[in-house]
Amino acid sequence: MKLYQTGATPSCRRVSIFLKELGVEVPRVEINVREGDNLTDEFLARSVNGKVPMLELATGETLCESVAICRYFDASYPNDLHLFGANPLAKAEVEMWHRVVEFQGLYTAFQAFRNITGFYADREHCVEEWGHESKKRVNEFLPVLEKQLSQHDFVAGNAFTIVDITAFLFIGFCINGLKIEVLENYAAIRLWFEEMSKRPSFN
Amino acid sequence: MKLYQTGATPSCRRVSIFLKELGVEVPRVEINVREGDNLTDEFLARSVNGKVPMLELATGETLCESVAICRYFDASYPNDLHLFGANPLAKAEVEMWHRVVEFQGLYTAFQAFRNITGFYADREHCVEEWGHESKKRVNEFLPVLEKQLSQHDFVAGNAFTIVDITAFLFIGFCINGLKIEVLENYAAIRLWFEEMSKRPSFN
Repeated sequence: MKLYQTGATPSCRRVSIFLKELGVEVPRVEINVREGDNLTDEFLARSVNGKVPMLELATGETLCESVAICRYFDASYPNDLHLFGANPLAKAEVEMWHRVVEFQGLYTAFQAFRNITGFYADREHCVEEWGHESKKRVNEFLPVLEKQLSQHDFVAGNAFTIVDITAFLFIGFCINGLKIEVLENYAAIRLWFEEMSKRPSFN
Repeated sequence: MKLYQTGATPSCRRVSIFLKELGVEVPRVEINVREGDNLTDEFLARSVNGKVPMLELATGETLCESVAICRYFDASYPNDLHLFGANPLAKAEVEMWHRVVEFQGLYTAFQAFRNITGFYADREHCVEEWGHESKKRVNEFLPVLEKQLSQHDFVAGNAFTIVDITAFLFIGFCINGLKIEVLENYAAIRLWFEEMSKRPSFN
């Protein structure tokens, strides 16, 4: 088994943190997305989406999409951490908050960054006005997260789940990628972010 | 238990088809999103995302996000349909294909439609250039789906799953919302689409 990654990207960090939480170690192959290592014919022939991370199984089959890779490990290595939720209601709440944090948060933040900065203008058409609109929507979403974290210890409720990993990466991306002063303006997010930062898996 | 819905929208149809596949019936409350029934203070106080569908449980708790609602029913009504995958690898493949079809397909198609038509210009800032870019990306994604369906009977592989429901709604939206001639140009998608159309749950 091998995990193809560009370690510093949010999607690869999501898998790395998830694996550390589970206590599972997987050999890594570092590739350089900025240099287009993921756009070679060889990589594209094995990948559904042309992105990192990509997991190569012992059978030679490959899995893309970081959350799919996390689900694979969660289901393959039975554990009582319940990172996708412990019962039907919790599973649904994890799915709900995960989607809200991804669609309104992380994915919108990615669109803001890519379209404003033109970081991948060599491989995609950027629309700067959409970048600014996306950044505005990220700013409109942060109070939703603040409200939830002012009432709960974790994003999906009262237990640590994969949603905290995704939300942590989202907040880090807001701060570093979009220069939004999240920690200065949202007290509950800051408190939760500081708690998450103490987890060994996040470092 | 009550399901608040605007029956004709793709997200509400996803839940309806899923429930029919499971054989579960739930009382519905029809609301009109176009008229802004989902934007009232009362609705927003109970909803994390301000969207339909929203499921109200017997406890009064609410769940948003159509896939979260599907997961809730799948986990609450034990069954052997495995609509989210039957084993660790299948669960991961369902998650992978579901995310690919949603992010590259359905969600991108929604962005195309909303930004080109200004359908919700009364409540969101539209960027027409981003709409056209999104439609171009939908057109670039269709060959990925065509390739998969030329090799497999179902989108996530060899069994019917929730991904077929989402992909069916995506293709319908391409045809009706974006006026893309999918069935004329993609033979494997057409064959699969015709097979899906025969399922009682899809009607």
